Amino acid sequence: MSDLHRGLFGEAEVAARFSDRARLQAMLDFEAALAEAEAEAGVVPYSCVAAVRAAARAEHYDLDAIATEAAHAGNVAIPLVRHLTARVAATDPEAARYVHWGATSQDVLDTALVLQLRGAVPEILRHLARAAEAAAGHAERHADTPMAGRTWLQQATPVTFGLKAAGWLDAVARAQDRVEAALAEALVLQLGGASGTLAALGTHGPEIARTLGSRLDLAVPDLPWHAHRDRLAHLAGALGVAVGTLGKIARDVSLLAQTEVGEAHEAPAEGRGGSSTMPHKRNPVGAAVALAAAIRAPGLVGTFLSAMPQEHERGLGGWPAEWETLPELVLLTAGAARAMADVLEGLVVDPARMRANLDLTQGLVMAEAISMALAVRMGKEGAHRAVEAASQRALATHRPLADVLAEDPTITRHLSPSDLAARLTPESYLGAAGELVRQVLARHRGRGSKHA
Amino acid sequence: MSDLHRGLFGEAEVAARFSDRARLQAMLDFEAALAEAEAEAGVVPYSCVAAVRAAARAEHYDLDAIATEAAHAGNVAIPLVRHLTARVAATDPEAARYVHWGATSQDVLDTALVLQLRGAVPEILRHLARAAEAAAGHAERHADTPMAGRTWLQQATPVTFGLKAAGWLDAVARAQDRVEAALAEALVLQLGGASGTLAALGTHGPEIARTLGSRLDLAVPDLPWHAHRDRLAHLAGALGVAVGTLGKIARDVSLLAQTEVGEAHEAPAEGRGGSSTMPHKRNPVGAAVALAAAIRAPGLVGTFLSAMPQEHERGLGGWPAEWETLPELVLLTAGAARAMADVLEGLVVDPARMRANLDLTQGLVMAEAISMALAVRMGKEGAHRAVEAASQRALATHRPLADVLAEDPTITRHLSPSDLAARLTPESYLGAAGELVRQVLARHRGRGSKHA
Amino acid sequence: MSDLHRGLFGEAEVAARFSDRARLQAMLDFEAALAEAEAEAGVVPYSCVAAVRAAARAEHYDLDAIATEAAHAGNVAIPLVRHLTARVAATDPEAARYVHWGATSQDVLDTALVLQLRGAVPEILRHLARAAEAAAGHAERHADTPMAGRTWLQQATPVTFGLKAAGWLDAVARAQDRVEAALAEALVLQLGGASGTLAALGTHGPEIARTLGSRLDLAVPDLPWHAHRDRLAHLAGALGVAVGTLGKIARDVSLLAQTEVGEAHEAPAEGRGGSSTMPHKRNPVGAAVALAAAIRAPGLVGTFLSAMPQEHERGLGGWPAEWETLPELVLLTAGAARAMADVLEGLVVDPARMRANLDLTQGLVMAEAISMALAVRMGKEGAHRAVEAASQRALATHRPLADVLAEDPTITRHLSPSDLAARLTPESYLGAAGELVRQVLARHRGRGSKHA
Amino acid sequence: MSDLHRGLFGEAEVAARFSDRARLQAMLDFEAALAEAEAEAGVVPYSCVAAVRAAARAEHYDLDAIATEAAHAGNVAIPLVRHLTARVAATDPEAARYVHWGATSQDVLDTALVLQLRGAVPEILRHLARAAEAAAGHAERHADTPMAGRTWLQQATPVTFGLKAAGWLDAVARAQDRVEAALAEALVLQLGGASGTLAALGTHGPEIARTLGSRLDLAVPDLPWHAHRDRLAHLAGALGVAVGTLGKIARDVSLLAQTEVGEAHEAPAEGRGGSSTMPHKRNPVGAAVALAAAIRAPGLVGTFLSAMPQEHERGLGGWPAEWETLPELVLLTAGAARAMADVLEGLVVDPARMRANLDLTQGLVMAEAISMALAVRMGKEGAHRAVEAASQRALATHRPLADVLAEDPTITRHLSPSDLAARLTPESYLGAAGELVRQVLARHRGRGSKHA
Repeated sequence: MSDLHRGLFGEAEVAARFSDRARLQAMLDFEAALAEAEAEAGVVPYSCVAAVRAAARAEHYDLDAIATEAAHAGNVAIPLVRHLTARVAATDPEAARYVHWGATSQDVLDTALVLQLRGAVPEILRHLARAAEAAAGHAERHADTPMAGRTWLQQATPVTFGLKAAGWLDAVARAQDRVEAALAEALVLQLGGASGTLAALGTHGPEIARTLGSRLDLAVPDLPWHAHRDRLAHLAGALGVAVGTLGKIARDVSLLAQTEVGEAHEAPAEGRGGSSTMPHKRNPVGAAVALAAAIRAPGLVGTFLSAMPQEHERGLGGWPAEWETLPELVLLTAGAARAMADVLEGLVVDPARMRANLDLTQGLVMAEAISMALAVRMGKEGAHRAVEAASQRALATHRPLADVLAEDPTITRHLSPSDLAARLTPESYLGAAGELVRQVLARHRGRGSKHA
Repeated sequence: MSDLHRGLFGEAEVAARFSDRARLQAMLDFEAALAEAEAEAGVVPYSCVAAVRAAARAEHYDLDAIATEAAHAGNVAIPLVRHLTARVAATDPEAARYVHWGATSQDVLDTALVLQLRGAVPEILRHLARAAEAAAGHAERHADTPMAGRTWLQQATPVTFGLKAAGWLDAVARAQDRVEAALAEALVLQLGGASGTLAALGTHGPEIARTLGSRLDLAVPDLPWHAHRDRLAHLAGALGVAVGTLGKIARDVSLLAQTEVGEAHEAPAEGRGGSSTMPHKRNPVGAAVALAAAIRAPGLVGTFLSAMPQEHERGLGGWPAEWETLPELVLLTAGAARAMADVLEGLVVDPARMRANLDLTQGLVMAEAISMALAVRMGKEGAHRAVEAASQRALATHRPLADVLAEDPTITRHLSPSDLAARLTPESYLGAAGELVRQVLARHRGRGSKHA
Repeated sequence: MSDLHRGLFGEAEVAARFSDRARLQAMLDFEAALAEAEAEAGVVPYSCVAAVRAAARAEHYDLDAIATEAAHAGNVAIPLVRHLTARVAATDPEAARYVHWGATSQDVLDTALVLQLRGAVPEILRHLARAAEAAAGHAERHADTPMAGRTWLQQATPVTFGLKAAGWLDAVARAQDRVEAALAEALVLQLGGASGTLAALGTHGPEIARTLGSRLDLAVPDLPWHAHRDRLAHLAGALGVAVGTLGKIARDVSLLAQTEVGEAHEAPAEGRGGSSTMPHKRNPVGAAVALAAAIRAPGLVGTFLSAMPQEHERGLGGWPAEWETLPELVLLTAGAARAMADVLEGLVVDPARMRANLDLTQGLVMAEAISMALAVRMGKEGAHRAVEAASQRALATHRPLADVLAEDPTITRHLSPSDLAARLTPESYLGAAGELVRQVLARHRGRGSKHA
Repeated sequence: MSDLHRGLFGEAEVAARFSDRARLQAMLDFEAALAEAEAEAGVVPYSCVAAVRAAARAEHYDLDAIATEAAHAGNVAIPLVRHLTARVAATDPEAARYVHWGATSQDVLDTALVLQLRGAVPEILRHLARAAEAAAGHAERHADTPMAGRTWLQQATPVTFGLKAAGWLDAVARAQDRVEAALAEALVLQLGGASGTLAALGTHGPEIARTLGSRLDLAVPDLPWHAHRDRLAHLAGALGVAVGTLGKIARDVSLLAQTEVGEAHEAPAEGRGGSSTMPHKRNPVGAAVALAAAIRAPGLVGTFLSAMPQEHERGLGGWPAEWETLPELVLLTAGAARAMADVLEGLVVDPARMRANLDLTQGLVMAEAISMALAVRMGKEGAHRAVEAASQRALATHRPLADVLAEDPTITRHLSPSDLAARLTPESYLGAAGELVRQVLARHRGRGSKHA
């Protein structure tokens, strides 16, 4: 991602963890821990450890030089190991013999990625938790705030804003669980050597892997996973689903914020969401960030999946295809989560406008309520037809549905004027909305301790 | 999927469950169970139930008529409910009043899909289990069968075919777990009515939902999930990852089966994998099916994710975009799993050719073994350089590496002729391969009871 | 695509051309023409031609049997050729020797696809032409109909509905050109034999290819293109872009049709766009079809591109991955084009509601007009600030912008009351809208003869 | 793209043109030219032009500050215009009034992108031309070099390496044409103001657009195209197809370079394609770059298409979704083209190994030749069966096909020993390969003048 866009589409903490410098540092952390694990196993002399550790600081290295050499070598690990070895050699030629001992480029690149993910993905979880908490607040405050339910972008029957917010909360909570679980599954060491047998470590391979896993606090898998990328792919999928949910919320917010709807809008802030030419605008900038992410994430997830059929013990094009893809996806997800957490925390809700919009159709939005009340008396199809006819008349004559219904003896035979009036009130036709909201909030509070 | 290709790319059981007829039947099962649940709640008369149940058989309905009307109405539910109502009315006009009572099109379409998934996805799991078991057999039988490890499609250091098969097994087992978990999460009832409040059911909504869930043996979620598609998206992701793993195995098999490699090939069968013009060919037909699926699945997963930001209480284009996408993905996954289970069960392995190919480079594939042995004596870089030089000489002069090494005093100073010879044997440089295979097999056996 | 959805998401003519039966017929057409071309070259006896031609009718063959055998053989061509040969043999055993002579499965499958595309894609062009013509009508009729321009889903400055329709027209016209050009490029014969050398035809290969191309009215490329799929990929891309444009128009229509906006809606029709529970609804069913296609097409285009790196002389998984992908994309594009042509032809436009919505902000939508007028006198930033402040006051006090502006001496110093009033009229601030519409219409008329 | 990978996956010239600094410069170039065009039209005072032009140098601006403000404002244009205005104001407050006069953020961002594309895409064309030229060289040199044709990764009938290279050349040439045409179509000015009417420019809008187009050497479209992204989408598609073709060539090269095939490999270079642990390896580093691009490009193309249905006069999430997507795709395409041009220019071809591999099957690869020769005498199916049986015997007994055929009277009845021997020579069964290569080369030379 361009530096110009990291603040807009990304998230500061995550961007920092996926900076070029941080990428090299994670690789160097692997190399230092490897030397230690190997020294402990007696495979390399203990004296090397300090020299490697001292040289294992990313600020020592010239990014441009490494980038240039990487273009030639095919990956970043080869030049970094070369530079690391040279730096160690400058102070301890003996130690330099043992840098990167028995490991292959993929060991260091994959494990470094895992370490970066461990640092970065919890930031996503943090923002998702903020978004969930903010949605819970809306659900609670607006459990009884009626608004138009909308299907196919048409007003349907009434809902409450609390119900909409509870839907957001519920989906965000599921996203948290999935991302957390997928991250846990992905936090595994990669150490296999050239072809995954650890042969260069003689009989010490598994022992060194265990020590290294323990030092890096990573699980040690049953097998090196060089060409089996499913754990990372599963994480990519979980991130993609999370972005989809954030995009859905963003879609709702952006539609509510339309000039003609005006039921909610992002918190105004100096210089935010303004237009360079239209001083009155309140552009849904946060929602746009999440929607843009929701458009981009599917391509990145698809790319990761497309890269999976990697050849034999190391993929030819598939593995390099991942290097930019997963960091970009993590950063986009973090940006979308940050943006929507901000949006939901600051969301300005206008219950009066919600209520007013329910009256826009002069009662048509309550047609189902009448239809159902009649259906008990005259059957669903007949009721449907009667109310449909009345609705068409109301539309054609621009009159309130109440007035048209009151003139129709088929209907007044079954529903008295006061009955009709009561049933035309949105508040009377909210069904289980309140109970559903309470269920979601109860579950949210039950989770509280877990994600606090 | 075209009927011409369902057998090739799909799987018979799954294709049957996603046939047009089966789709209608699942919808009718929902309608019948809904009538029962509503009767139990006293919302519709008990007398309706038998009439609806009797009419709820897909063979009663004209698919072409429903398809034609669906093109007009925007979905299949509207005409199906209309036809169902008409059929019920023919025998019991009173009962016809209560067909689809309080439900919306999305309730029936989504729940029907969930019912179809419940029937279909276990077929995928069954084939994955077959593939895992077959891979376990190879891992066990070939735990000590050396072959060339290959990275970047170049021979690297030796591995065993058992190790490769253990990698397949391990990844397939993870795919089983993820698909199973994602299916379990997706098996939830959809019942919300027009806007998700169940308002048309008065105060009985949640109770009816619970009864209906129980009758259909589906979990009842805290909320209707009309526009929140993350559970299905997560299942799509899990399927996509599974296909990626199957594609990876297929890639390996197809590469092993190359005329020039010849280390394994799909079981020959009359008329299978033959060419219309080249009688000697043994095309890896099963692997091609899985590779084709691995190319197509990412697009389908991406499509499902792209469809997620659905508007308000019902998506406009997003929801319909799912209707073909998820069934196609399930069918492709089933086809790939079926194909690779067959491939692995029948895989003909040629250990002699594996061993012979290890000699193709006249010892160069053992260069690392020598390099590591020297590294202990002269440092990694020096050793690497010495062996690299010897390798280049061997390449240039088309001589065995052993001969070139034996001439180089830098090397013979450290390694005696017999030492060199021993270290140039692939069997001596398999590292932890055996132990890794055993770990994977032990875990596989531990899982056995679960997926039996 | 499921038969249940072909009418909804697809198009009847195109669906017919991609039916299983039609697919077989196209393959049989190839076989018959091949026999003729080979007879003409003296490679097969003339007497065969009639027998092959007589047998080359799809209704003679059992689709289920071919599908079952295809699952085994790896493609549909192998069993079809087998059945064709058997049928020919039943009447003329001598002729049966020469069926499919010198050709390979890919020759028949690819050429058949090209023949199907030639029949199907013009239907897309026809619907695009209808959509363009309908958009032109709106552009012409509404060249002076003011409505709110909307950016970020917020009202911005006024535009005309004619300008919006001209934008649609212009983009659809470009889509027509691109699809037409890409189709022309794709209409090439495939004939290469087993590996693309035509070796089985001896010295007659190129001559037979030319005759066959001429009989099938297809261009003969410089080379067989078995594993080079770029022409088809380019067509897929052009279709994907066309669907994107249709989706953009559908997005606009669906937003205009919102209950709260109500500026345009799809033509009402008996049973169309109605809801099963809300009699008053007018769901934008046509727009939903195009939006669903716009969500699905990118995945199909991406799949086709992903399939391109096919191995050597015939792809292993890449080629089969195309078989469902391109027909589905053609069908979806046709469905979207058909749907949007219908939508645009029937679109009910409400200029009064457009005008009324322009007043919703009590003049804020005209802020830029005032800002620009002031900017000439006091600089852009100062003017922007003054108008922004006035806008905020108007918003906060719920008063018309005109009133607030009239109170501000910074502003009234530069603009008189009548000047202000005039500049607050949307009609006064339409810029070049009229001229732009005329340009587009003139170009459309100039193209008329071409696509008539 | 991370700086660490720009050299590996990208291309230096293109990376430079899409650097953050270059992006700002292109935007500033737009602003300066806009001021000039407006001064010429008399809309802003001529005195402004020099001040704006002087300030319009990217090195004056603080990228970090602009990035930070962009995160708040929603795009980079808003802060850049603010900083530009401030800088102009410091020297000429009067001029500062007219910075960005009448334009909107999208005008500057889109036109800047178009300017960057104009600089960058020709670099892609240049590398494609290099690749084509190199492929032409191979086609010419190896027009008569037999090698195994391979379908489904199985040896099929013989081809020539020249034929394979001609296929590469032909496809690359088509890619050049398409990218060139799509670029030409995309090189259009964006100038529409807030909603696309140019209203803020009074009656001068179209005139200023023409002048600006002329100054920037960009075509002026009939309409501003803010929310119609099809021209860029079409370019994205053309780039995607080009990458697919490069990936296909890369796939072939990587397969030819396999240790077990060894028919061609990338030019060796110091430190290139080496492994950190296996001194003998020659990893196909260039092919891996193109294959990685071929895995990533489909997702980027799909993303661009997914972003197309943008709302009304400016997209909410769709437009921002493009900002990283198209530059990344251009850079990846350039990297793939550069890599494959290098690969093809340096490709080391081993005709002897090609010939030797043709003998690997002991004649089975010539089965079709025998089959066709027999077919004329005994019918295709009978011949096919006879040769298939002989092939199976040869396989089972590990004997040359020639020997088995010689024993079979069904065959020797029709083909004499010398006839058999001649027909088992690959050189005798190359069909039209030579003629096809000549056709492609002739067309290539005919194009020469165009792309020189």
